[in-house]
Amino acid sequence: MSDVRDEVGAETVAELHATALELIDVARTIIERAWADGFTVERKRDGSFVTNADLEVEQRLRTSITQRYPEHGILGEEFPALNPHARFQWILDPIDGTEDFVHRVPTFGTILALYYRGRPVIGVLDHAALNLRASAAFRLGTYSNGARVRLDNTEVPSHSTRLILSARANFTRFRDEGHKFDALVRAFPNHRIYRSCFGHTLVAIGAADAMVDYQDRVWDIAAVPILVEEAGGAYHVVSEFDTPEGARVYSTVFGKHNVVTRLTALLK
Amino acid sequence: MSDVRDEVGAETVAELHATALELIDVARTIIERAWADGFTVERKRDGSFVTNADLEVEQRLRTSITQRYPEHGILGEEFPALNPHARFQWILDPIDGTEDFVHRVPTFGTILALYYRGRPVIGVLDHAALNLRASAAFRLGTYSNGARVRLDNTEVPSHSTRLILSARANFTRFRDEGHKFDALVRAFPNHRIYRSCFGHTLVAIGAADAMVDYQDRVWDIAAVPILVEEAGGAYHVVSEFDTPEGARVYSTVFGKHNVVTRLTALLK
Repeated sequence: MSDVRDEVGAETVAELHATALELIDVARTIIERAWADGFTVERKRDGSFVTNADLEVEQRLRTSITQRYPEHGILGEEFPALNPHARFQWILDPIDGTEDFVHRVPTFGTILALYYRGRPVIGVLDHAALNLRASAAFRLGTYSNGARVRLDNTEVPSHSTRLILSARANFTRFRDEGHKFDALVRAFPNHRIYRSCFGHTLVAIGAADAMVDYQDRVWDIAAVPILVEEAGGAYHVVSEFDTPEGARVYSTVFGKHNVVTRLTALLK
Repeated sequence: MSDVRDEVGAETVAELHATALELIDVARTIIERAWADGFTVERKRDGSFVTNADLEVEQRLRTSITQRYPEHGILGEEFPALNPHARFQWILDPIDGTEDFVHRVPTFGTILALYYRGRPVIGVLDHAALNLRASAAFRLGTYSNGARVRLDNTEVPSHSTRLILSARANFTRFRDEGHKFDALVRAFPNHRIYRSCFGHTLVAIGAADAMVDYQDRVWDIAAVPILVEEAGGAYHVVSEFDTPEGARVYSTVFGKHNVVTRLTALLK
């Protein structure tokens, strides 16, 4: 199979994966210290939370990436894009679920991904307060705390499918697609609602069967495609559109193949 | 204020609280070992999971309680009730969220409570994989990993209220009350769905504003009343009934006072 990502070369992919893990170690150290010793909290213009830990992680990672790979692009939640036309693009969300972090719910996480010509090469999800990390690299597999994981794609009946959803608020965030949430909770009664990063990790390591994550920005969902693909699962963008302010918004379904097939059919 | 629990005496309450924490330490050690080294899994007649860790925790706690307090009653999920007419009743669920434990989702927890003449005296919720514990004792306060916690009862607007729900399946488990779930997810868009014990802990320590937990058995909700009461919050049973098999089922709302008031009104 020809894949544009093979241009990167296996050795470079392995090196970039190692670099991503070093970067996420830096992020974890900053977040562990803030979680233990405290942090400052502010509200952004959209009302969402940002802490000094979010800003410090993103700044530190941007500096490290720029030093090693000055020609690479960087797209993060808290600062403007760098080198937006570069072939390699790092995408990061320093703390996904900052609201949970602020309220001391330990399921927040850090999202880091690397794309090459628009295709995912590296993905890392790290949960400092859970000592849990999922990572993947193109043609190198998916790992849970360093151990290789592969999804079990045997059939799961709908009533016992372990499905993760985003909150109903996500389904109505920019467009009202609340009826899709209502259909999902009826068809798949064994559901949970978690924030993106925690849900993505659980699906990537096979702890849940699938997730339906609605109306996200690119940094929310940047890591999960390669994590799921390399674990042997499926990832689909079920819709994407631009907000009136020009922000691209994605709704996605991913996890075990047969569950994703059923979910995609239901969401059509 | 006259309260039947004052018959127990402050010194005895403190001693029973210390005993409960020793018991939960035993539970945590067993669960940590199983989480790290593995466990056996079986299905119960109702299709739910049980592991050798569930059984070992309940057996060890029953033995310890009986040795110290042979006249006390014990009610647990996995074995028959002991001394059901005793004034003191220990109630426990060795692993709440065994399905999550089995699938390596770290938010499972242990529930332990002590009642005196039908009123809650001690409550402990312990999350071995999160290093998170909430405990409370009558007139002694609520603690998060040993530090006193008090709920902030200032007003929270509905759109930003951090509400935890049980899955829609819980709302239709024995009776169809699914319309109440549908009303809640619309009125309180900032919701999550977690298993009982994790939700109870987050509410007790103020990490979430309130929880609506539907159609539970007594061991699922045994610890949370004293935890919320001693933290300065509110706890209401919004409905209770017996299943055709004679099992008592409870639906509850608890958390910050003003949020519980609004939730109770919505659920009427």
